[in-house]
Amino acid sequence: MNAEIIAVGSELLLGQIVNTNARFISQNLAEMGINVFYHTVVGDNPDRLKSAIEIAERRSNLIIFTGGLGPTKDDLTKETIARHLGKKLVFDQDALDSITVYFERTNRTMTENNRKQALVLEGSHVLPNDHGMAPGMMLAASDHVYMLLPGPPKEMEPMFYVYGRAALATQMKTSEKIVSRVLRFFGIGEALLETEIEDLIDNQSNPTIAPLAADGEVTLRLTAKHKDAAVAETMLDDTEKQIRQRVGEFLYGYGNTSLVAELVKLLEERNLTISAAESLTGGLFQEEITSIPGTSDVIKGGVVCYTPEIKHKVLNVKQETIDTYGVVSEQCAKELAENVAKLINADIGISFTGVAGPAESEGKPVGTVFVGMALNGGPAVVEKLNLSGTREAIRIRTIKNGCYFLLKKLQESQNA
Amino acid sequence: MNAEIIAVGSELLLGQIVNTNARFISQNLAEMGINVFYHTVVGDNPDRLKSAIEIAERRSNLIIFTGGLGPTKDDLTKETIARHLGKKLVFDQDALDSITVYFERTNRTMTENNRKQALVLEGSHVLPNDHGMAPGMMLAASDHVYMLLPGPPKEMEPMFYVYGRAALATQMKTSEKIVSRVLRFFGIGEALLETEIEDLIDNQSNPTIAPLAADGEVTLRLTAKHKDAAVAETMLDDTEKQIRQRVGEFLYGYGNTSLVAELVKLLEERNLTISAAESLTGGLFQEEITSIPGTSDVIKGGVVCYTPEIKHKVLNVKQETIDTYGVVSEQCAKELAENVAKLINADIGISFTGVAGPAESEGKPVGTVFVGMALNGGPAVVEKLNLSGTREAIRIRTIKNGCYFLLKKLQESQNA
Repeated sequence: MNAEIIAVGSELLLGQIVNTNARFISQNLAEMGINVFYHTVVGDNPDRLKSAIEIAERRSNLIIFTGGLGPTKDDLTKETIARHLGKKLVFDQDALDSITVYFERTNRTMTENNRKQALVLEGSHVLPNDHGMAPGMMLAASDHVYMLLPGPPKEMEPMFYVYGRAALATQMKTSEKIVSRVLRFFGIGEALLETEIEDLIDNQSNPTIAPLAADGEVTLRLTAKHKDAAVAETMLDDTEKQIRQRVGEFLYGYGNTSLVAELVKLLEERNLTISAAESLTGGLFQEEITSIPGTSDVIKGGVVCYTPEIKHKVLNVKQETIDTYGVVSEQCAKELAENVAKLINADIGISFTGVAGPAESEGKPVGTVFVGMALNGGPAVVEKLNLSGTREAIRIRTIKNGCYFLLKKLQESQNA
Repeated sequence: MNAEIIAVGSELLLGQIVNTNARFISQNLAEMGINVFYHTVVGDNPDRLKSAIEIAERRSNLIIFTGGLGPTKDDLTKETIARHLGKKLVFDQDALDSITVYFERTNRTMTENNRKQALVLEGSHVLPNDHGMAPGMMLAASDHVYMLLPGPPKEMEPMFYVYGRAALATQMKTSEKIVSRVLRFFGIGEALLETEIEDLIDNQSNPTIAPLAADGEVTLRLTAKHKDAAVAETMLDDTEKQIRQRVGEFLYGYGNTSLVAELVKLLEERNLTISAAESLTGGLFQEEITSIPGTSDVIKGGVVCYTPEIKHKVLNVKQETIDTYGVVSEQCAKELAENVAKLINADIGISFTGVAGPAESEGKPVGTVFVGMALNGGPAVVEKLNLSGTREAIRIRTIKNGCYFLLKKLQESQNA
């Protein structure tokens, strides 16, 4: 079954809102094993909507509409579809009752426009709206399945999740289960990762392997279909095993995680505290750690040392170090990491010093970054980075690299 | 001129990402007076992409593509368009040079796939990519204008804003100038602001007035059209003057500014330095200040004091204060602001302490926040906030309120 999602609304075409409905429905359909081949957005214009329906009918079996079920004159979705299919619109008594109750309860006057919201396509399966007035509906007619959903995400999302999915599953009479798993990689580019697993991607069918790159990370989404969910999981295990044999050293987590979240998890497991001395990152590392609730057992605090003066005065970096090597140096990163751990009385000190740009500094080019890491009172080790991108990208990638280095270091110390 | 935006990428159809590109481009086209009639999303499939192009050519003059310009085998946008139009792909030397330099600098291995990113449609106007590798391009051919942009918003948005809009304006040879101005407000809700200027909004035609609320701020976008840009500017001045008469006290800036940027600007003008003691915000204030280039004259540094221990040990908050009033208190905020200014040797100390949630703390409800401000060695004043929203929203609004308080305070001290 191939699907197309048609969002109706001029506010989308004016860029006033973003089409999150298409994303939500697509995610759900992917899980159900229904292929989505197209999204279309069309304005509140019956001729252009009719033309979009005709195009969709030529290329898709399932057409899901969002928007245009409201009470105003602009809302024309079901009227246009009714005319196109030669179907009548009839009142749905349940919807009419619930609209009437709503107006009585809020002491407001119900208009004829509001009654219009209770109209549904004759012969359709009605999808109740638990968070608003306009009901949704599904109609199977002439080789196509049409589903109409309201536009506001607060109404559409629960309606589709609870009633829409169930109606589709009945319609499809499917027993197949879809299971997916996301693998997250860092330290390897998208092009290189794909080259390493090229044959696996080329031969994929079930499970499928879908790569995605963003912000210096690469993810692979594996999706398996089988009537037995446990078998689908085993298929994912097998594919993951093959991928890990090639690029396992760069795999750092699964699903909706992040390098910062993985670091916090490991620090919690090991009962370790961390402190940070941040120069070019200006507080970003600590901000990201503390954005996770309940991290006060992991991070007590740290210092933003934006100028050489503060590095020397608050974090005791030797004036000689600054004069000889500069603040963008291995030596400075080392002292910062060691000294912030002492000041904050933490098990780990991490430091970030470098050139975020836009201009070079101390004769060192933009993107030159040193990350220092001192563990358990020992001498700090320092990693050097040559990053590229905007000031913002360099700061974000500095943090990601720092988390990745520290994760690797802690995993090694575990294995040693 | 009627436009259609075609986003290419299976990750959109799988619901992995949302199509923010269509929104961004639509907003810009609306400002330029170009009608957008359709958005289409199609996967990384050359046959379906070709079919989408043919449909678009029947109904639109301007077709803007996003995505599919990357290095992988899935990236087929320009190849498909080239074949469809019977055009060759040729290397753009500037793009090739910048890709080569990128790989040399980052010590990574350049593959043939990466070279492919420097290919452009023969005869097209190249749009430089200041934030990534794949250049964009615009081609006028057989009654249509085709524009190809990269998929990642961080690359696409600045490219379209800087180079794409200019290329389209030249192509349209329009004589009407569109001038817009964004007014930014803080400290007043959207509903109240709209009520105050309701008659102006109702009677708008040229200039138009478009309100938008986000993250506790409200913006008004004024847009005027006239063949003489200077006249359009005067029309904006008149409208702005009327708006200021009603709600001028809440206006803090214009265009792409922020409360943090306005604060930095004022501190630079007055030659003042600032330091921060951050508890619930975990470094966010300093991170935002230092995200602006060249702020080391304004901020030397500060302390993230996430636990009571660090507030006492590093920032000398009296143990008695913590024991008697707790860390979420006016007294603690006061000592933090005064003491961080001393430690960092800055003109101003600002402190943030409070409950970001999800759970209450010290018996104080989520959203209880104290902001301390100490100026020029004097005693700190403290403002109390009762914020609502998620943990993230509370942290963001804490920073915005802090900047707003400090801006007002500095403006008052100027006027006194």
